[in-house]
Amino acid sequence: MSENCLFCGIVAGSIPSQQVAENERAIAFMDINPATRGHLLVVPRAHAKDLRESAPEDLIAATLLAQSLVTTVIERLDADGANLLSCIGAEAWQSVFHTHLHVIPRYKDDPLQLPWHPTPGDMDAIAATAAELR
Amino acid sequence: MSENCLFCGIVAGSIPSQQVAENERAIAFMDINPATRGHLLVVPRAHAKDLRESAPEDLIAATLLAQSLVTTVIERLDADGANLLSCIGAEAWQSVFHTHLHVIPRYKDDPLQLPWHPTPGDMDAIAATAAELR
Repeated sequence: MSENCLFCGIVAGSIPSQQVAENERAIAFMDINPATRGHLLVVPRAHAKDLRESAPEDLIAATLLAQSLVTTVIERLDADGANLLSCIGAEAWQSVFHTHLHVIPRYKDDPLQLPWHPTPGDMDAIAATAAELR
Repeated sequence: MSENCLFCGIVAGSIPSQQVAENERAIAFMDINPATRGHLLVVPRAHAKDLRESAPEDLIAATLLAQSLVTTVIERLDADGANLLSCIGAEAWQSVFHTHLHVIPRYKDDPLQLPWHPTPGDMDAIAATAAELR
């Protein structure tokens, strides 16, 4: 655990999140600045600043959790597809320096471009979507 | 192997590519429509239309190869970061229906937005970059 790391706080439970899934080495929770409805973050429990520094077993656990969540968002949210994205370095749009994989549900004709402009989502709607995904 | 699949042809060697790395279950080669200099595709050898249908061991092999290549592009190409991206479904910008992970090197102040508009790169420059990455 790294002091002052937002995602370490979420992993530890000291910072609240809408968690939807977990395995031994990774957790998945709702992005509160969603690019699309159902946008999730998959995070290894162990701190590393980006995926270069994550241990293989942590990256594998996060990847397999993300793989299962791609299927979940498509089935449960009636999404038409999904993107899996990781950002390594500020120049690649990384803003939280703890390895994470974005699972971004995609919908026909959605206007998504990357980078998106993070803006706070409606917390009630996010909580309701989390319930659909659990 | 799937008939008429571009990436199966590259895996089999019947379609030429600038390959830069491989492991038992995955290969990495240059994207010929690069979003940035050094843009790579990491592809499981086994055909699956997208990562939902890839066996865990194939997705793991591709992910670990991509992880090592993120470090390689940053070190060898003097990139400032990288994005790892996978597109699941046409609505999520997938255009070749064989599981693949994009490794996109990022450079300070590069103009990248996603989706990018794929346009053929300079094949000599791509070959030279591949040599830097091998």
